[in-house]
Amino acid sequence: MAKRDLYEALARQLRADSIRCSTAAGSGHPTSSLSAADLMAVLLGGHLRYDWSEPSNPANDHLIFSKGHASPLNYALFRAAGAITDQELLTFRKFGSRLEGHPTPVVPWVDVATGSLGQGLPIAVGIALAGKRVLGAPYHVWTLTGDSELAEGSIWEGLDHAGHERLSNFTAIFDVNRLGQRGPTELEWNLDAYAARVSAFGCESIVVDGHDLTAIDAALERARRTERPTVIVAKTVKGRGVSFLEDKVGWHGKALDAEQARRALAEIGDVTSRTFPTLKPDPWQAPKRPAARRPEWRTYREPVATRKAYGEALAALGASRADVVVLDGEVSNSTHAEDFKKTAADRFFEMYIAEQQMVAAAVGMQVVGLVPFASTFAAFMTRAFDFIRMAAISRANIRLCGSHCGVSIGEDGPSQMALEDLAMMRAVHGSTVLYPCDANQTARLVGLMTDREGISYLRTTREKTPILYIDGLDDFHVGGSRIVRGGDTDDAVVVVAAGITVHEAIKAADELKGTITVRVIDAYSVKPIDAAALIDALRVSQGRVCVVEDHWPEGGLGDAVLAALAEAGVMQEVERFAHLAVRDMPGSGKPAELLDAAGISARHIADTVRELAGASRDRHR
Amino acid sequence: MAKRDLYEALARQLRADSIRCSTAAGSGHPTSSLSAADLMAVLLGGHLRYDWSEPSNPANDHLIFSKGHASPLNYALFRAAGAITDQELLTFRKFGSRLEGHPTPVVPWVDVATGSLGQGLPIAVGIALAGKRVLGAPYHVWTLTGDSELAEGSIWEGLDHAGHERLSNFTAIFDVNRLGQRGPTELEWNLDAYAARVSAFGCESIVVDGHDLTAIDAALERARRTERPTVIVAKTVKGRGVSFLEDKVGWHGKALDAEQARRALAEIGDVTSRTFPTLKPDPWQAPKRPAARRPEWRTYREPVATRKAYGEALAALGASRADVVVLDGEVSNSTHAEDFKKTAADRFFEMYIAEQQMVAAAVGMQVVGLVPFASTFAAFMTRAFDFIRMAAISRANIRLCGSHCGVSIGEDGPSQMALEDLAMMRAVHGSTVLYPCDANQTARLVGLMTDREGISYLRTTREKTPILYIDGLDDFHVGGSRIVRGGDTDDAVVVVAAGITVHEAIKAADELKGTITVRVIDAYSVKPIDAAALIDALRVSQGRVCVVEDHWPEGGLGDAVLAALAEAGVMQEVERFAHLAVRDMPGSGKPAELLDAAGISARHIADTVRELAGASRDRHR
Repeated sequence: MAKRDLYEALARQLRADSIRCSTAAGSGHPTSSLSAADLMAVLLGGHLRYDWSEPSNPANDHLIFSKGHASPLNYALFRAAGAITDQELLTFRKFGSRLEGHPTPVVPWVDVATGSLGQGLPIAVGIALAGKRVLGAPYHVWTLTGDSELAEGSIWEGLDHAGHERLSNFTAIFDVNRLGQRGPTELEWNLDAYAARVSAFGCESIVVDGHDLTAIDAALERARRTERPTVIVAKTVKGRGVSFLEDKVGWHGKALDAEQARRALAEIGDVTSRTFPTLKPDPWQAPKRPAARRPEWRTYREPVATRKAYGEALAALGASRADVVVLDGEVSNSTHAEDFKKTAADRFFEMYIAEQQMVAAAVGMQVVGLVPFASTFAAFMTRAFDFIRMAAISRANIRLCGSHCGVSIGEDGPSQMALEDLAMMRAVHGSTVLYPCDANQTARLVGLMTDREGISYLRTTREKTPILYIDGLDDFHVGGSRIVRGGDTDDAVVVVAAGITVHEAIKAADELKGTITVRVIDAYSVKPIDAAALIDALRVSQGRVCVVEDHWPEGGLGDAVLAALAEAGVMQEVERFAHLAVRDMPGSGKPAELLDAAGISARHIADTVRELAGASRDRHR
Repeated sequence: MAKRDLYEALARQLRADSIRCSTAAGSGHPTSSLSAADLMAVLLGGHLRYDWSEPSNPANDHLIFSKGHASPLNYALFRAAGAITDQELLTFRKFGSRLEGHPTPVVPWVDVATGSLGQGLPIAVGIALAGKRVLGAPYHVWTLTGDSELAEGSIWEGLDHAGHERLSNFTAIFDVNRLGQRGPTELEWNLDAYAARVSAFGCESIVVDGHDLTAIDAALERARRTERPTVIVAKTVKGRGVSFLEDKVGWHGKALDAEQARRALAEIGDVTSRTFPTLKPDPWQAPKRPAARRPEWRTYREPVATRKAYGEALAALGASRADVVVLDGEVSNSTHAEDFKKTAADRFFEMYIAEQQMVAAAVGMQVVGLVPFASTFAAFMTRAFDFIRMAAISRANIRLCGSHCGVSIGEDGPSQMALEDLAMMRAVHGSTVLYPCDANQTARLVGLMTDREGISYLRTTREKTPILYIDGLDDFHVGGSRIVRGGDTDDAVVVVAAGITVHEAIKAADELKGTITVRVIDAYSVKPIDAAALIDALRVSQGRVCVVEDHWPEGGLGDAVLAALAEAGVMQEVERFAHLAVRDMPGSGKPAELLDAAGISARHIADTVRELAGASRDRHR
């Protein structure tokens, strides 16, 4: 079959299948699929190099539907490539089917979950960056965006980075169909405006008629060859190919009913569902990496900030593992991620102040087997919450570090203080949340994160903190805790702390020594939390518990402790529960002043312990 | 004094004061202040129209330091305007001072908190939008940005909207000093690249030497007069005015020590700290708005989705109050915010798919006294978490509505399901979190949000839900709850639910009728939660409680209930606590299938209640 005929036949089939599967589902986005059908037909039929029988082939191109709602088209591609059957295609959106409403990597040919707009493109930038700068891989990364999502700032963060890094292996395809969910987009068919933006952000723009198969063919050819990142700005028609859908408002996210589908399929023409040939990548093997060695952690004896220990742990990882990559949001001299450059400068990625792009790039890099750590101030991780949430749906393995948590940062004031990050990170599906109080512990927790699946988060502290742990450093584990005072008692008040408040709790315990025994638990694993240690603590304390944290009261350590006790069914053993947390909006001041003003300093802990002990005495009297 | 001499003297004083206050503090960002001193001297001395004695004058210009870390310069401006004393200036960053490390509206001449980069500009866009489209106000909005923050996508969301709305009353000043926190910025002094981006996003760029007072003067003059939004792209030198600081890496965020400060002040020249004259705005009064009337809420009797009731409540508000404005992220036909257009189309703002800009604009609009409601899918509110967090530091009064929460949305799959929004919104300082289960209740909660201070959040549901409430609709209140089954019993199992799960709980209670009595509590006020009702429920249930929510287990209703019980000191009365929440990653399917698969359907609630009742019987036997 001539190339053009093949494209035409393929486009017809993609259109028909997009309608058929969404009509069978009774929901979905056929019109958003139809606008991009010609673009994807030419890509699949003539340009994408992909071994459908081996999705993990490291030479495979990558194709990410940033416009995840065009999933009917995405799945129709898989059908046309022979990866799935027609029968499976018709399970679209049905309970139990892997063909979900928006693509997820439950499907082997899908790299990442999309559906929150503006995310697929920045993730594709990450895959391209890894291919070019770390792997030297031959793959090209393609991403299809809608035009509505071009209003998301994250798109421009992505193109800015693509341009800056001159990612010649990156091509975005803008499907400019003029219509968003509820009406015209901001720029409608102003292709020149899009092209000007693309160029200004350092990428090469190629404007095409998105239904002219020959023009698309030439554009894709040029896109792969160009020395710069490319954006194909394609003028398309929403619902293209079906007269009563074309360029019509009110058809977004609507499936055709059976009669409408019959008419639409009649217009599209006689389609025999079949498998089309696609290009395979040239054989390529990634160069063998040196075998991972056990990292050589530094041993600290003098006070060191946990953020500094994080940086030095990354440096140890850089020397011992060739798959670890580090990203930072232009604050690497504060998070100390810059230390990684001492051992693996070529695997350090400066993401500038673009936290969304930073997390997206980390997600992209783990797609191709790298082990990313990404850091910024913990407060600014909130900027990327939607990306972190989606990373969980992507089943991504990424490691995040947020520094400068809590009021203990001091003078910079509340805009720089993370006081909600534990709540945010606990509420990420399958996440691990770690919060060290000491430099040696930090290194070991970084080690644990390296091989951890899912999304793990490390919360570090700005100020230097004393060293608590010299021995038993290999005993730290996800889900663990450590008793740092009062481990040998049967009549204590329990203080559960983490990070900076562990040191405040120790001061309180030492101050009370001889009058009230205090068991201080370092709950360095906030999620999962060490329920067994908490239950044991209830027993020795006759249920007198104080949780103290440098965080708002909601969603942090206090909530985690209560949830664990409730789940264990031991609520009745909690005689008294005190929760010291940051309750008023802090200002600026010295760390010690702010800890005290927030009511989470040693003095307040000691007062609370006295109260808990006294109350108990009153009751037992 | 000739204008130029005045600018020079003012610039010298701003430089000297920036150094003096940061040196006195022992921290802060003097070099980031010095680069913009000339720009701000000309603005303050010749262009800003501001009545310093009356910061609430509605004709005042607005000046927002998007680069909040240049707070020494911001406060030096206040000193030069005579708004604060020299003595107060030297309290910068000290505990108890209102001159915090980054500006906050604790200071009367500061509109909003900044310090998380990339936020001041989008908020300024909101103020300009309100001035132009709602108030018809004469003010001009100025915002000073750093160059590092231009990597944030939110900057481009802001300029995109400024351009699209042709905000002639908006001027951004880019302080392009080439150096970020840890080294050169991505674009360094490539002013052409910035100018191209600005133009491509629909704003007029004016490139100047940021230390040429005459050129700055002309640029600011032009900026106020131009019919389009303007961006002054100013080439500056970080640390300008002090030889050993100029264009030096390693001086970001560092105060000079006393000796360095002495040398710097000697270079800057003899500065007598004084008050400079500034322009006042022309007298202007906002046209009187019609007095607010009591909104006429619809009364629903048939099943209606709470999201639809939200839209219709907005429409009622539109008719009854002239200060309410509505913003939506290009999903107003899904959130139903579009209904507001029926009564107040001129106060509806289409923010396209730019959630950060949407929340920023809402924050900007409340600065000038409007009452904003902003909506998108609850899942996509996570995109704006950093803006919401900062809005709390801004002491902003904004109202957010997130629709399509939980697995009950059905086929669209997890990318569109908010399962972490309660955790996120509970962890916002001073927030109110409401979650209605019925259309009549929704309207009343929207009414309560209208006059609520701080950040309030309404979580709405995609599916239609039955009407529960016809009577007592005026009794709903923030911090309230409602018993919907089993209010008259003394031996019940308690189910605490909210939103969609209230209906599942009712089905379970009705199914169990005659065998086990169930008290179902509709905890529509998730924060603050109705502790009294929970304590009362413990009593009647002998401590057998089940919480059921369409949310991840962390940070939502379950955690809120436990925290309230713990704070009330009644943990010992909790005999059994079951928590039904979404624990596995959902896929697509029908709402009922997904509720059941997640273990939060009526069937699972009934099973859990049986278990709680049975366990209790076993125990009491």
